[in-house]
Amino acid sequence: MISKAQAKYVQSLHQKKYRQRHGAFLVEGGKSVLELLSSGVETETVFCTPEFADQNRAKLAPGPAPVLVSEAELAQVSTLATNTTALAVARRPPEAPLPPALPLGALVLALDEVRDPGNLGTLIRLADWYGLPGLVLSDTCADPWAPKTVAATMGSFARVRIWPRPLAEWLGALPAGTAIYGADLHGTNVHRVALAPAGVLVMGSESHGLTPAVAACLTQRLHIPRGPGGGAESLNVAISAAILLDNFFRGQ
Amino acid sequence: MISKAQAKYVQSLHQKKYRQRHGAFLVEGGKSVLELLSSGVETETVFCTPEFADQNRAKLAPGPAPVLVSEAELAQVSTLATNTTALAVARRPPEAPLPPALPLGALVLALDEVRDPGNLGTLIRLADWYGLPGLVLSDTCADPWAPKTVAATMGSFARVRIWPRPLAEWLGALPAGTAIYGADLHGTNVHRVALAPAGVLVMGSESHGLTPAVAACLTQRLHIPRGPGGGAESLNVAISAAILLDNFFRGQ
Repeated sequence: MISKAQAKYVQSLHQKKYRQRHGAFLVEGGKSVLELLSSGVETETVFCTPEFADQNRAKLAPGPAPVLVSEAELAQVSTLATNTTALAVARRPPEAPLPPALPLGALVLALDEVRDPGNLGTLIRLADWYGLPGLVLSDTCADPWAPKTVAATMGSFARVRIWPRPLAEWLGALPAGTAIYGADLHGTNVHRVALAPAGVLVMGSESHGLTPAVAACLTQRLHIPRGPGGGAESLNVAISAAILLDNFFRGQ
Repeated sequence: MISKAQAKYVQSLHQKKYRQRHGAFLVEGGKSVLELLSSGVETETVFCTPEFADQNRAKLAPGPAPVLVSEAELAQVSTLATNTTALAVARRPPEAPLPPALPLGALVLALDEVRDPGNLGTLIRLADWYGLPGLVLSDTCADPWAPKTVAATMGSFARVRIWPRPLAEWLGALPAGTAIYGADLHGTNVHRVALAPAGVLVMGSESHGLTPAVAACLTQRLHIPRGPGGGAESLNVAISAAILLDNFFRGQ
């Protein structure tokens, strides 16, 4: 059973302010909770149904002894309309160091005003797929520890490093010669240029593009060609990032 | 002002059963409503605030005279938590013919059990970007006319053709020699093969992959290489489709 104090604490973590205050975040749904327990991220508490505990005894073993709850209790404290298995409170990992000259020979993804948590989560998953060292986030991005972001990462939240930074300043302070790529309708056709995954790839908000101070830092603008007869004006930010990353990794 | 009967009708269209019965669907938010009015899709009714009507007089002119409503009235009938501008009821377009041998020399996207309306909408937008003739949907896909799908298409719902079909049967009846591509972890590296956009690209559900009967129809399996050191097990279905489509259109 979940105590009144526990329920209040879990519900407080729906809000960014309390996630920051407590240095904790929620991991919702059975699959994500098992990913959490197999990762190096510290787990405070696991709440799950007796059925889930029975079925996942070995996988739950590395974590704290689970608090057994009913589906109704889970639904009451979860942000999900249906969460019939498990929920965990995890400790926010300490920030890993980000060398001023970037991890050598690696590509870092930087996001400028990506405000949608679903898009941010999908981008974190994508960074994990390509083995990028991590993501630099402008302070106008969605919270990487919001429940919707964590859910959209499909477990990658535990593997990808996140560095919140004032983006234009951070880009401006990188060593001269660092390649800083960004998407731009008037940029070079990404199919006509050989790209190596080193430097920074900056992605902006879908509706407003890059903020001017960030756009001014780019050293190369890339353009994803639209198909012949294509009608859409633009692509979703995570979709664009995926296509660009695939082009960066073609030669690997 | 919105009448009681109008409110009841609009709210009924939140549900698939009534969208089918009435041959109608909802378009929510100002931007999407304006896309609707500039498309060839028939519009039954536009509900909008007086401010929105004032600001978009010319763009609203091709549609029926708008019913002016308050933000509170909009919120009451909308599926969106915040819709402060406009909502329209549109007529479902009649199905365009799909030749048994496919549109010659074009690539059709076929979706097998893509149940998430957000993913489906993003895939429709992607098909529009690449100028594909349309999408064939298995009957286990999300409803292409659901409000969440329509919103995720970002206006592409009005330009892309949709053909619901029993997928395995439809694929099985295509002329011999039609290329049928699908994503598969054990397929050919998509960077190591020259692809032309002709035939069918089949995408399955993220969690379960292609259903066996559909998988049996593939003539070529393609694999998106993961980055060195990458940790994620898989990619989102719309992300995978985007990367594959970019590879199909490299030579164009």
